[in-house]
Amino acid sequence: MRFISQTSSDGVTERLFTLGDIPGVLWTPEGAVGARPLILMGHGGGQHKKAPGIVARAHRFVAEGGFAVVALDPPNHGDRPKTEEFARVAAGLRAGMVAGEDIATHLAAMHTFLAGQAVPEWQAVLTAVQELDFVGDGPVGYWGMSMGCGLGVPFVATEPRVRAAVLGLLGVHGLAEAAARVTAPVQFLLQWDDDRVPRAEGLALFDALASADKTLHANPGKHGEIPEFETGSSLRFFTRHLS
Amino acid sequence: MRFISQTSSDGVTERLFTLGDIPGVLWTPEGAVGARPLILMGHGGGQHKKAPGIVARAHRFVAEGGFAVVALDPPNHGDRPKTEEFARVAAGLRAGMVAGEDIATHLAAMHTFLAGQAVPEWQAVLTAVQELDFVGDGPVGYWGMSMGCGLGVPFVATEPRVRAAVLGLLGVHGLAEAAARVTAPVQFLLQWDDDRVPRAEGLALFDALASADKTLHANPGKHGEIPEFETGSSLRFFTRHLS
Repeated sequence: MRFISQTSSDGVTERLFTLGDIPGVLWTPEGAVGARPLILMGHGGGQHKKAPGIVARAHRFVAEGGFAVVALDPPNHGDRPKTEEFARVAAGLRAGMVAGEDIATHLAAMHTFLAGQAVPEWQAVLTAVQELDFVGDGPVGYWGMSMGCGLGVPFVATEPRVRAAVLGLLGVHGLAEAAARVTAPVQFLLQWDDDRVPRAEGLALFDALASADKTLHANPGKHGEIPEFETGSSLRFFTRHLS
Repeated sequence: MRFISQTSSDGVTERLFTLGDIPGVLWTPEGAVGARPLILMGHGGGQHKKAPGIVARAHRFVAEGGFAVVALDPPNHGDRPKTEEFARVAAGLRAGMVAGEDIATHLAAMHTFLAGQAVPEWQAVLTAVQELDFVGDGPVGYWGMSMGCGLGVPFVATEPRVRAAVLGLLGVHGLAEAAARVTAPVQFLLQWDDDRVPRAEGLALFDALASADKTLHANPGKHGEIPEFETGSSLRFFTRHLS
């Protein structure tokens, strides 16, 4: 793990790093000493590790909860090169969106294509970050919406170190088998008027999660319009399960 | 409004009162002086104004939020006499439950029968309580599950003084018209494995609410098994909208 830069603002220190060819960012309380719970954040499709929605939530999780937070550029996103195969899958998704089709099949194909590489990458980064003495190997949470949910469901299903997850903005298509292996507590966010994910598909993904402790939060609005108060709710959920 | 008794415990003062022939209970912070937001609580069918679930939540709303809280015995409940017509409607509901029928029609009949009297009673009690100098005419919230939702939806639809409501554990049957007139912010609780209210009926009631600001919280478990953490969530919802 190689650190590239370090800056601080409003009590939060941000470190850019690479692990092999994976670019990542780590946020911690400024001057953090000793172990603390860690939250991994998976961004939406076409975004990157420092997308505004990721940065804003990461800052609150660090400043208000004392967590460490990590985000990555998954394969074909952010600073990473795009492969021809990714371009083909992405073009299929875009064409489906333009044509106004139900894009569930395209989304599932994209996430399945990415997850095979993204899941072991998350595991490697988790191992490396937990070796830092100001993070440590305490409880781990995962937060991911949309594509961050599509990669997060197989990751959380596979990785026993994750003890709580906030997931959402995605349907069950292609994820039923992995969801049935998720047993960590989950807070699931659904947008009631989601223009990309049919309501019944989102409800079915919540239903498919095997977690005994799961809670669904549904709010009016389109795909990207999660209300601000849900960030506070995510923070309380992680605090309840990881602290 | 006539006060019958006054006791205090753990910083919460409880006053039993009657308004005409309506028995009620008012909880406030011990030694409360001046105006404060008020929460009206409607209990479930067959319960009464001091049912354990009501008392426990009322104490938290008062002790942690500084609210005043009122609960009533609605017609045919608690200390009030039961009419023959109520006995007939209740017998139909019980028979339906024993027979394992979908009881939506029976529940709707019961709530419609009660609401005609219960809604104006709530309005009269609200007016009387707001005249107390240690309550005042500040913002008002309503909390009601199951029958407390069946009476609460027409009450909140009718009463502009109610500025936020926590509702749930009931389906849309018989309530669509009133729900379409509810415009106050609503937090709606649904039990994912409700043994009395089919999931689709509960989701349809949330959908039918006209409120632009509404949020659905669904949790695993049967009708009465709302998780404890939802009380904290209701408290934050009321604090956000009434304080």
